[in-house]
Amino acid sequence: MSAKLPFTPNPETDLVLERTVDVPPEWVWAAWTNPEHLKHWFCPRPWSVAECKIDLRPGGVFRTVMKSPQGELMPAGDGCILALEENRRLVWTSAMEPDFRPVESGEDAFLFTAHILIEPDGAGTRYVAIAMHPDEKGRQKHEQMGFHEGWGTALDQLVEYMQSRAS
Amino acid sequence: MSAKLPFTPNPETDLVLERTVDVPPEWVWAAWTNPEHLKHWFCPRPWSVAECKIDLRPGGVFRTVMKSPQGELMPAGDGCILALEENRRLVWTSAMEPDFRPVESGEDAFLFTAHILIEPDGAGTRYVAIAMHPDEKGRQKHEQMGFHEGWGTALDQLVEYMQSRAS
Repeated sequence: MSAKLPFTPNPETDLVLERTVDVPPEWVWAAWTNPEHLKHWFCPRPWSVAECKIDLRPGGVFRTVMKSPQGELMPAGDGCILALEENRRLVWTSAMEPDFRPVESGEDAFLFTAHILIEPDGAGTRYVAIAMHPDEKGRQKHEQMGFHEGWGTALDQLVEYMQSRAS
Repeated sequence: MSAKLPFTPNPETDLVLERTVDVPPEWVWAAWTNPEHLKHWFCPRPWSVAECKIDLRPGGVFRTVMKSPQGELMPAGDGCILALEENRRLVWTSAMEPDFRPVESGEDAFLFTAHILIEPDGAGTRYVAIAMHPDEKGRQKHEQMGFHEGWGTALDQLVEYMQSRAS
């Protein structure tokens, strides 16, 4: 089954991960929106999440700090939640800070908006993550950073973690 | 009366225009959200609006093309509506394109988010427009472009136009 998307991704500028997973949409939603859950799965191991702050409203902060296996912190800046529908859709961006303040631009800025789309698929969830970039260069950079493997592994970790909580 | 703001503007990075005007909030809302109205007041004369496209939803386009007195078109790119509450609040940005796509960054990018806040004040409207920038440089640039005079004159034109429609 292919999920119904709110817009058509542009293959030149956007990256898409689409999978069906064996946990219900409510679990995927909880994993994405509760910082205590998110810390357990958001970074492919042996990387980890040192800090996570989420203010679940349009304009609210979506901040994560990743930690390398060597203990180096990689703050990604305060992100901003743009839109949400409980158990259905979460949109956040690295291109804004809370209250929709645009981030300082510059050649080395890594700007993207993430659309996380979830819907029931049998007893599980059809999961679509779209990373949307300003241009082809941004898409290429994210692809070289390992978008597909990274976001795929993180999703595996999400499923494993949420299943372990239920057992 | 001072309006209650959803966040505290930062004087280093933000510009604020606050006034009470003699038209009801519904008229201010209509003037900002209906392209046919917006064309009549958005640019201080003798500049004008050559084109306006508004898709009134979070993620929808907010596009204006200004025309100089000499007829030169100044497209500002497709902007994006971020949040809205009918007759209360409209938030849009030049830093994103529709569906929340971040714009290409660069030294010459002119990025800001506009928060338009309206509330009843007697028979009129308390009107607050906040232009929020990534940094002090952005605020200074907008100030030098004539933010206060420009947005103030546009508001005068809005009131005059909406009153002329009613008479």
